[in-house]
Amino acid sequence: MGNCIVPYCDGPQSTNIRFSLPAVCFVWQCSMIILFGVFVRYNEESDARWVEFRAEKNISSDIENDFYYRYPSFQDVHVMIFVGFGFLMTFLKRYGFGAVGFNFLVAAFGLQWALLMQGWFNFLDPADGQSKLEWKILGKVSPVQLMVMTLFGITLYAVEEFIILSLLHAKDAGGSMVIHTFGGYYGLAISWVLYRPNLKDSSQRNGSVYHSDLFAMIGTLFLWMFWPSFNSAICDHGDGQHRAAINTYLSLAATVLTTVAISSLKHGKLDMVHIQNSTLAGGVAVGTAAEFMLMPYGSLIVGFCCGIISTLGYIYISPFLEKKLLIQDTCGVHNLHALPGVIGGIVGAITAAAASEPVYGKEGLTNTFDFEGSFKNRSPAVQGGFQAAAMIVAMCFGIGGGILVGLILRLPIWGSVADDKCFEDEIYWEVPGEEEPVQPVLEYNNHMAINKNE
Amino acid sequence: MGNCIVPYCDGPQSTNIRFSLPAVCFVWQCSMIILFGVFVRYNEESDARWVEFRAEKNISSDIENDFYYRYPSFQDVHVMIFVGFGFLMTFLKRYGFGAVGFNFLVAAFGLQWALLMQGWFNFLDPADGQSKLEWKILGKVSPVQLMVMTLFGITLYAVEEFIILSLLHAKDAGGSMVIHTFGGYYGLAISWVLYRPNLKDSSQRNGSVYHSDLFAMIGTLFLWMFWPSFNSAICDHGDGQHRAAINTYLSLAATVLTTVAISSLKHGKLDMVHIQNSTLAGGVAVGTAAEFMLMPYGSLIVGFCCGIISTLGYIYISPFLEKKLLIQDTCGVHNLHALPGVIGGIVGAITAAAASEPVYGKEGLTNTFDFEGSFKNRSPAVQGGFQAAAMIVAMCFGIGGGILVGLILRLPIWGSVADDKCFEDEIYWEVPGEEEPVQPVLEYNNHMAINKNE
Amino acid sequence: MGNCIVPYCDGPQSTNIRFSLPAVCFVWQCSMIILFGVFVRYNEESDARWVEFRAEKNISSDIENDFYYRYPSFQDVHVMIFVGFGFLMTFLKRYGFGAVGFNFLVAAFGLQWALLMQGWFNFLDPADGQSKLEWKILGKVSPVQLMVMTLFGITLYAVEEFIILSLLHAKDAGGSMVIHTFGGYYGLAISWVLYRPNLKDSSQRNGSVYHSDLFAMIGTLFLWMFWPSFNSAICDHGDGQHRAAINTYLSLAATVLTTVAISSLKHGKLDMVHIQNSTLAGGVAVGTAAEFMLMPYGSLIVGFCCGIISTLGYIYISPFLEKKLLIQDTCGVHNLHALPGVIGGIVGAITAAAASEPVYGKEGLTNTFDFEGSFKNRSPAVQGGFQAAAMIVAMCFGIGGGILVGLILRLPIWGSVADDKCFEDEIYWEVPGEEEPVQPVLEYNNHMAINKNE
Repeated sequence: MGNCIVPYCDGPQSTNIRFSLPAVCFVWQCSMIILFGVFVRYNEESDARWVEFRAEKNISSDIENDFYYRYPSFQDVHVMIFVGFGFLMTFLKRYGFGAVGFNFLVAAFGLQWALLMQGWFNFLDPADGQSKLEWKILGKVSPVQLMVMTLFGITLYAVEEFIILSLLHAKDAGGSMVIHTFGGYYGLAISWVLYRPNLKDSSQRNGSVYHSDLFAMIGTLFLWMFWPSFNSAICDHGDGQHRAAINTYLSLAATVLTTVAISSLKHGKLDMVHIQNSTLAGGVAVGTAAEFMLMPYGSLIVGFCCGIISTLGYIYISPFLEKKLLIQDTCGVHNLHALPGVIGGIVGAITAAAASEPVYGKEGLTNTFDFEGSFKNRSPAVQGGFQAAAMIVAMCFGIGGGILVGLILRLPIWGSVADDKCFEDEIYWEVPGEEEPVQPVLEYNNHMAINKNE
Repeated sequence: MGNCIVPYCDGPQSTNIRFSLPAVCFVWQCSMIILFGVFVRYNEESDARWVEFRAEKNISSDIENDFYYRYPSFQDVHVMIFVGFGFLMTFLKRYGFGAVGFNFLVAAFGLQWALLMQGWFNFLDPADGQSKLEWKILGKVSPVQLMVMTLFGITLYAVEEFIILSLLHAKDAGGSMVIHTFGGYYGLAISWVLYRPNLKDSSQRNGSVYHSDLFAMIGTLFLWMFWPSFNSAICDHGDGQHRAAINTYLSLAATVLTTVAISSLKHGKLDMVHIQNSTLAGGVAVGTAAEFMLMPYGSLIVGFCCGIISTLGYIYISPFLEKKLLIQDTCGVHNLHALPGVIGGIVGAITAAAASEPVYGKEGLTNTFDFEGSFKNRSPAVQGGFQAAAMIVAMCFGIGGGILVGLILRLPIWGSVADDKCFEDEIYWEVPGEEEPVQPVLEYNNHMAINKNE
Repeated sequence: MGNCIVPYCDGPQSTNIRFSLPAVCFVWQCSMIILFGVFVRYNEESDARWVEFRAEKNISSDIENDFYYRYPSFQDVHVMIFVGFGFLMTFLKRYGFGAVGFNFLVAAFGLQWALLMQGWFNFLDPADGQSKLEWKILGKVSPVQLMVMTLFGITLYAVEEFIILSLLHAKDAGGSMVIHTFGGYYGLAISWVLYRPNLKDSSQRNGSVYHSDLFAMIGTLFLWMFWPSFNSAICDHGDGQHRAAINTYLSLAATVLTTVAISSLKHGKLDMVHIQNSTLAGGVAVGTAAEFMLMPYGSLIVGFCCGIISTLGYIYISPFLEKKLLIQDTCGVHNLHALPGVIGGIVGAITAAAASEPVYGKEGLTNTFDFEGSFKNRSPAVQGGFQAAAMIVAMCFGIGGGILVGLILRLPIWGSVADDKCFEDEIYWEVPGEEEPVQPVLEYNNHMAINKNE
């Protein structure tokens, strides 16, 4: 796995971020301040006038403030974004600082940009969406390139989401389509445009060490545990959030068993890459249908299949993509996001088309699919059709947008990384020396320690 | 500490999980799907018909959905199970992958099996229960054996819990009896049946390194912080959950101080094993009485004593168990679960027997002990008696069940580990090389790195 | 960075904690039990009589129990205190056990002492306050000294908080003044009194290694993510908590970008010390004004400035403090707490003075500033004046208290650390050997491993 973007970058001097990074950070943060000053205000629920608002709407109690419905899930999702994705990438032996640090930077910018376009809670998804976008090519691009990818990625995301959720009125609680399908193909397309043949020069750093794999498991576990919060974060109050959490939870549980099964089938030993990634595929694939009456056993079936497909993807599809299609899928985004996302979209379309009043109840059907206003007379079957259409839209935006942004990133102005310097923290970080012996008791050992730190 | 199960296992070939593990995972997950298809449906609070249900019961608001009472605690408990227990075991220098990975697998299966038998929220305890069961002998058994232990353990647990909570109508909010006493003795009994004399052959791996102890502290801290959520997760709404959280919280705080005191008394230095484990004993011991009016100072006293007893257990009882009783208690389950669990059961019985209307209020007494229906006329004194009886039931189930399952695990069909291969990830995992120097500047260093990775 | 307290301490024997630490732990914990027995009872919301209380106050539902308003934030704050601050300090290569372990001990005692003085939820701040107090000089003092510092620190804190919040009726939701300004100057003053010239003797341990910096990032991220919970934990129900979370969240996001900008400006590479610490300054500085109508863009501006100031502090102010003022600021408390705390106090005073009915609404203004009872007729302008006064009080308490406690800590009875033994876990902890090669394949390698572990 692994590759570096921009084939014709030319070593250290071009990787100097001394001016480009501060410039981007300052200019963009200033723009944020101005844009927030013009466009963003507190909503009624966070405004000091809430007391009056409560009286008007005669809301009986402060506990009805959306804050108490959403905040715990909101925090869980942030743990996923900052700790989950940050540490998931620390498996690379010499890219821990970059994985955690750049994810931190990009998420901090991305959430502002997303907030600006979407308001308080919706932002959860895009913020997460963008962490996934940059996730794809961590280790191969400069922080400035990451910021650019995030800017374009979230902008595309906002447009795509508007089309899918508002115009097509498709449902996508967990973002299988709007986040994972879009984000996955976006990353793959960028990687295709920026294919680089000479990556083997970085191969000795493109792997894990014992403790770096343990750090990565911190990321995996927090992602796995809090995925139910992610898929339920923006669902309807009450049964909607409750059901979305249950469905996601069951799907994830089934994925773990089938991932372990396929991984150990390969050649009798478990592979950390599969455990770290494929165990999460069930959460992606159940996203669209999470709020529907998928039924507990339905969720288990989805998770069951995704654990198998995603793990097989790491074993067979990724190598194929790299050899035949010249797409270097460093982190297996195809197996964790694109493919499960598509499955999720299909599952969602079928589940929606199969919805019926006997199962949902009359009111329940209307609430779950928001068959209100101009969509009052839409039938579940028709809804299923629109869900499928939304699927196509997400793919097109991902592939088209990725090619576009990839071409922009080819411009040799971004200070990217030389072939033999990929996955190396030293380019962008002050890196401390290696572990030394507890106390260097022998002249001999001291000598070693010194060599190591040269 | 530490031992390997099945004395007469015969090396690598018998540890090959290439077919046994996938077989178990696939077959059991398929069974789950079928059983869920037949038996499991959404409850009213997670069903799309919730709106109608709300109307019938005239529940005023969506915030009354049990989801909002329980979900934050539910998530905390999951952090305890997956991150807490997973990382607590990473203290072994070469067993990090197995500790985190197998805990992940077993918990993912266990929660489905438990859910099947208990429904949405009750499942919290058994899911946790089983993590504790397998916890006991991590490092010494094959993943297949762990799955078998989990299957039997949770089944026994469900029966035992039904007897204790439903038939005896004992209260056990934090599971001191139903989880910790049962689980602790279950593990110890298995270990006794599977005693193995030649463990010294693995002794060079049976220890920690500096960073592995830090990883373990991640587990300890998340367990410590979220134990109040665990003990309060299934308590009554309102004051019940509130009081259980406070009692657990205070007990844990006191335990830390006395654990540190005893640990440093030993020989002037603190021992990580004590800090990692004994600091949690107060949470176990306050479990049964957590929902009662134990009083803040009462909780402190319980924690105070448990810190002392548990730490002394690691210093004196564990060696005794191994030498005299031939029970090898790898992870000190006796000091963290069995013993504090028994204390918790006794504290619970006494506190229940001492309950009175002046302290609880008339309604409060009824609510706290559910003196309703066929138990309408039970007095606190009688309740205390039943609590004590429950304690005995838990111990019997633990010891009896453990011996039974231990005998099953002696069957030479499970592919377990050779004497000299215990606590070694390489048997079941693809293990990466060791850390290399930042950049191998010297021929000399390169040579070393190569040797290390051979 | 880094220095050792008590210049005239004399090596190992004086660092023996075999009797002093157990004595302190036992005596103090017993005192806690007695004091709790005398003074602490459940409040109505956690008392079994809650049902009657509910009826009187005709509270419609159990969900109105304060537990459901506060518990999620309460748990987040605990993650900050135990995992956040504990791991933030693990960046020192040989002080991981002390950082996590002593933070654990001190927090467990501090929260009892604070609880005693403040009751269930207020305690959040002091508990956090004290973690910050001891944070300052971790690595340089004995655990006994830490306990003494905590005892005095929290006592001073309680008095100072009473003066500021009750007498002056100043608002300080996130504790910029009562916690960060006070705590920061308290630590700096202690460090000044205890200045020690010979610290260079410990310099080889006073640094980080690659994985210790990653452990520290676990701390940073949990602090960053949950800071909104910290600043909103004790705010008014409803819009108050909601707004405080949003303001903190935005301020923190802006801080990340400007921290990265300044850090990379220095010499083209990012410095982990800045990313680990300065990214949090925005949360400190927005604390006082978090509950006010600071406006989203206002929060961004506060964060923007603090990222710059705090990072510059690490680059220029810390060296100046050490050289000119003989204050050795090991962990940069001045840049993360004292300075941002003062900024926060000023921002709070200005925002309060600028408050007006058109912005807050009549009721909103009263609720936000509690212009009730004897403060009924206080105007926003006057409130601004009192906020400024509170700022001064916090600084005086911090500096004065720090000097006082520093002098106490100079007493040679506390068993502190020799010049050349600072930042070394081996003094107080049983430390395991270093990592060994996966399997020692060569005689040569075995030999090395042995040397290393000598």
